[in-house]
Amino acid sequence: MHELGVVYRNIERTDRATTDALAALGSATVHEAMGRVGLLKPYMRPIYPGAQVSGTAVTVLLHPGDNWMLHVVAEQIRPGDVVVAALSAECTDGFFGDLLATSFQARGARALIIDAGVRDVKTLTEMAFPVWSRAISSKGTVKATLGSVNIPVVCAGMLVHPGDAIVADDDGVVCVPRTMAAKTLEAARAREANEGDKRAKLASGVLGLDLYKMREPLEKAGLRYID
Amino acid sequence: MHELGVVYRNIERTDRATTDALAALGSATVHEAMGRVGLLKPYMRPIYPGAQVSGTAVTVLLHPGDNWMLHVVAEQIRPGDVVVAALSAECTDGFFGDLLATSFQARGARALIIDAGVRDVKTLTEMAFPVWSRAISSKGTVKATLGSVNIPVVCAGMLVHPGDAIVADDDGVVCVPRTMAAKTLEAARAREANEGDKRAKLASGVLGLDLYKMREPLEKAGLRYID
Amino acid sequence: MHELGVVYRNIERTDRATTDALAALGSATVHEAMGRVGLLKPYMRPIYPGAQVSGTAVTVLLHPGDNWMLHVVAEQIRPGDVVVAALSAECTDGFFGDLLATSFQARGARALIIDAGVRDVKTLTEMAFPVWSRAISSKGTVKATLGSVNIPVVCAGMLVHPGDAIVADDDGVVCVPRTMAAKTLEAARAREANEGDKRAKLASGVLGLDLYKMREPLEKAGLRYID
Amino acid sequence: MHELGVVYRNIERTDRATTDALAALGSATVHEAMGRVGLLKPYMRPIYPGAQVSGTAVTVLLHPGDNWMLHVVAEQIRPGDVVVAALSAECTDGFFGDLLATSFQARGARALIIDAGVRDVKTLTEMAFPVWSRAISSKGTVKATLGSVNIPVVCAGMLVHPGDAIVADDDGVVCVPRTMAAKTLEAARAREANEGDKRAKLASGVLGLDLYKMREPLEKAGLRYID
Amino acid sequence: MHELGVVYRNIERTDRATTDALAALGSATVHEAMGRVGLLKPYMRPIYPGAQVSGTAVTVLLHPGDNWMLHVVAEQIRPGDVVVAALSAECTDGFFGDLLATSFQARGARALIIDAGVRDVKTLTEMAFPVWSRAISSKGTVKATLGSVNIPVVCAGMLVHPGDAIVADDDGVVCVPRTMAAKTLEAARAREANEGDKRAKLASGVLGLDLYKMREPLEKAGLRYID
Amino acid sequence: MHELGVVYRNIERTDRATTDALAALGSATVHEAMGRVGLLKPYMRPIYPGAQVSGTAVTVLLHPGDNWMLHVVAEQIRPGDVVVAALSAECTDGFFGDLLATSFQARGARALIIDAGVRDVKTLTEMAFPVWSRAISSKGTVKATLGSVNIPVVCAGMLVHPGDAIVADDDGVVCVPRTMAAKTLEAARAREANEGDKRAKLASGVLGLDLYKMREPLEKAGLRYID
Repeated sequence: MHELGVVYRNIERTDRATTDALAALGSATVHEAMGRVGLLKPYMRPIYPGAQVSGTAVTVLLHPGDNWMLHVVAEQIRPGDVVVAALSAECTDGFFGDLLATSFQARGARALIIDAGVRDVKTLTEMAFPVWSRAISSKGTVKATLGSVNIPVVCAGMLVHPGDAIVADDDGVVCVPRTMAAKTLEAARAREANEGDKRAKLASGVLGLDLYKMREPLEKAGLRYID
Repeated sequence: MHELGVVYRNIERTDRATTDALAALGSATVHEAMGRVGLLKPYMRPIYPGAQVSGTAVTVLLHPGDNWMLHVVAEQIRPGDVVVAALSAECTDGFFGDLLATSFQARGARALIIDAGVRDVKTLTEMAFPVWSRAISSKGTVKATLGSVNIPVVCAGMLVHPGDAIVADDDGVVCVPRTMAAKTLEAARAREANEGDKRAKLASGVLGLDLYKMREPLEKAGLRYID
Repeated sequence: MHELGVVYRNIERTDRATTDALAALGSATVHEAMGRVGLLKPYMRPIYPGAQVSGTAVTVLLHPGDNWMLHVVAEQIRPGDVVVAALSAECTDGFFGDLLATSFQARGARALIIDAGVRDVKTLTEMAFPVWSRAISSKGTVKATLGSVNIPVVCAGMLVHPGDAIVADDDGVVCVPRTMAAKTLEAARAREANEGDKRAKLASGVLGLDLYKMREPLEKAGLRYID
Repeated sequence: MHELGVVYRNIERTDRATTDALAALGSATVHEAMGRVGLLKPYMRPIYPGAQVSGTAVTVLLHPGDNWMLHVVAEQIRPGDVVVAALSAECTDGFFGDLLATSFQARGARALIIDAGVRDVKTLTEMAFPVWSRAISSKGTVKATLGSVNIPVVCAGMLVHPGDAIVADDDGVVCVPRTMAAKTLEAARAREANEGDKRAKLASGVLGLDLYKMREPLEKAGLRYID
Repeated sequence: MHELGVVYRNIERTDRATTDALAALGSATVHEAMGRVGLLKPYMRPIYPGAQVSGTAVTVLLHPGDNWMLHVVAEQIRPGDVVVAALSAECTDGFFGDLLATSFQARGARALIIDAGVRDVKTLTEMAFPVWSRAISSKGTVKATLGSVNIPVVCAGMLVHPGDAIVADDDGVVCVPRTMAAKTLEAARAREANEGDKRAKLASGVLGLDLYKMREPLEKAGLRYID
Repeated sequence: MHELGVVYRNIERTDRATTDALAALGSATVHEAMGRVGLLKPYMRPIYPGAQVSGTAVTVLLHPGDNWMLHVVAEQIRPGDVVVAALSAECTDGFFGDLLATSFQARGARALIIDAGVRDVKTLTEMAFPVWSRAISSKGTVKATLGSVNIPVVCAGMLVHPGDAIVADDDGVVCVPRTMAAKTLEAARAREANEGDKRAKLASGVLGLDLYKMREPLEKAGLRYID
């Protein structure tokens, strides 16, 4: 499926304001708002807790043990982007460290999502440059083979197109396709609007069984209580 | 083995004082005191470090991708309980988030032990509601199929009966059967009583070889020293 | 391959000053300096973030579920050592807790690297005794079978000889063979010397493509840009 | 949860005729007939294809690396039994080989279900003694620690009581509790009775959509066809 | 990324003759001919050895534990198709058995590729209906939620469009995009043409070092021989 | 630990007659005879059942995704050798197929043991060239980076020196160090000599409990029988 050795310089990014508004809503709410799709596999974990970002995807396809294309993708980063790095085969090597992070940050990148390993995590934490990865590893890589930049990639099981909106936090990473971003933001905000009131009721001891009127459907489904 | 669609309302809980006294001893000491049984598989990890709890088990059997029964179990929680959620098949979806946690906390639950995924972990951390889980995932669930509440369940490889005492901390989760709780507490306290003295001796440089009189059995077993 | 029931008391340790100087360089830089070899598998993770140590390896071969030899190895520890514990078969039990850590620390050990589980991690964190392990588990062990001390072991996929230098931090664990330590330190320092200047340039927006003169080789390899 | 060092000699076995009739129905049909519960985790695989057995469970709890209790359980086997071996912690060692199989077969055992490893698989295949296991391994075990025989055990995630009926074939292993066996056999036969007719219709080209009258519920659920 | 509840009835299939010619070349040669892309993850294994097929992809997106859409996709099968089933989250349940296989075979399907489990494998083997799957499991599924048919899916990490050519054998499963099929067939045949001659030379004892003229590049790369 | 870019041409092989005699004893008996050490991890599985070989190890260290050194090692094969291929990092690519197998077989190799993937397994089976591997995969590799030949390697967790004896069958792969081979053969034959008699007794219904005189030690250990 992958075109190799190609860099697309012009990609259509999701609207900036829409993209930026997604971060505060969080990956779980956005995932719900999309109809429960778009989530990268849960083995993708942040290197430190607490980061919560959204941004426009710049994609890169890498080969195992070779991070050459991370230098190529750096040039394509614009402020507000999140780099999404997919691998042509499974690998846990440390493709990315503090020098590349310095370069990415200088170009305006907000985060890296990589289906492989990362290193220098102590320094990355001090730099406040968040990474979601499948592994942490000191193992370095060579610079020998071509991948591609800004082609559609499959990262941690999810298809990501260049320009899609990415939302990432402690719960995981969600990809919102560009054409669905506005609708998703609206749906996510609607969900969020309801939550304050629900939370107050639940905190006061009201049960979800009553709040969500579940007693009748549960009875219909055959639930029996035994004393 | 599982009865489906049933909620047992009356369960016999482990004695409150006994249960509450177990937390301070910790899962490792309690596990030793039980004769090295009762531990859930070590893939069960806390969502944040430092929590250390004990409580009486309220159990729930869930199906993959469906958290309906978590609302049903909420009504059965009494202050001092720990909810133990088992799955009928492996799943890493995020079954539990901040709204359910608000409800559980309002009912007096001290923690959730779930052999699946959880989400909103940042908020759960701020709420100080600890969860031990096999995964963290934004992926939401439906509310469509019946499981059961307060039946014996197998959670992370361990059989848990409703009313058993649960001890959970950074080292893992241990289940103490109700009928063994008093004896276990006593044995755990006896272990603990010894430790202060041992620690002082080891800190002063005394070797375990001498403290525990291991030199002779090691020699009998055939250990050879080579200079 | 393993000789069982033997303790070698006299091992040749890597030069102290060389060993100690490696910690500050970090596992990633040292791994690069060695030509990208020596790394233990990345499933070895620290029990708390931030520790960064180097030391001379004292090795021990353990059997699943049996930590007897950890008491034997304690006697062989000298100040500045790091204990490297290998297993004869896969196991996640908690072989090591706060009492053994007290003893190891009293003997001058700087860390434990163990291809199995560890417990009492809260106390170990308070003691500032770092451990890199494959698991955390409350599960205790027996003291019944002989392994060996200070024989060559395979720990997390890497061959470690007694006396080798070990470097461990948030990125992982690297073993530097004794005979390569001086050369490795030199090469690591040379790498480090370059990094400050590079970092400043990258931070100012210079691209790695230009800093490392990659544009020409990329073009030769066939990279195409599409607008 | 486990009582250690105990052998229960008298167990109540599921009715012989009922148990024996389950084999021909197969694990998938029996699992359906039970309401989709009772299946051991799918990592349990047969050591050779084609075996299809049912029998009454004789249970044994083993410790990692120690097969002593397999000799103890041998004495408790009666013709028509299937030995179900659970482990107190994960282990892939080869607990069982051709000598034990000779003994089990001589006692009338039909199969072994073991949540660990097995060896001599070539000879076991020639002997036609089927085993479902999580691993195959040459690694032998010691005979040093007590487990128990004929206590309830958790094997590959499923609770098995002594005397339960076990059904195992190429699709996996199902446990049918003794008290549910008669009802399960009846339900399984009812399912089976229907299948011949359905198969003929499907083979002739009738679609499941029509045979099971799914078109209307699919439309109600919102399915859209696009040309 | 996935549109839910939609069935595309008209898809553009890869040319029949081109698709059919790929089977004999095998997945490894086709994968090489495509430039080493297109392979599904190697956890996808055939349920019996020896099957070697190619066909046009009809795709279906399923949800964990729910095989309803397999009945929907059956209607869209045309002779020469291979059904490619992706999952919205990881699952090992047995989605497919002998009744569905009878229906698929009657419609002209050549195989099923499913990123989940399958059952009735003994009967499927007798029917000579090959399946490549990630698991074998007796566990059945419900029929309750909508997925989609003939949308692009990610199956075992690879993007598959409806109509793409699929090649599957004992070595794995490769997806050849429709637009690349003709070129891939040509390249695969060219590779194949060379192999007979090479094989004869290698069988006669000629070394690959000489046949492929590797001695010089190896020497340039720095390879040293030590006697 | 690894020296890169080096080929040792002269290695000391285990005595031919001793090595050849090990095959018939099998990996389990040899592993026992060595004192239960020497086994490669049990994820190493044969590509087809029934092969049973022994031979002298010719070792090679490969890098992920690169099989160049398999051509280099081919030249070092002598009749009766088994090639043992280790990887510098985890990888499941298909490093070896029918052409290399033709070359290896022509040189007199009896098998390949590789801690990675293999392909063309149907043809390899027809050629009766056995391979033990961690994966089967169509994915090809490049020929770009140097490893080494006939250095000590860690393969599937076990240290293998060039010239060691390798025993492999359906139960797994065992490495017998050259200096231990004669003693191991003798011990394995002694074990084997006993087995026929034991088997006959067990087949006649004598219990292991009596044959091995276990009743007394079990009672001493505290085993209780309950009627």
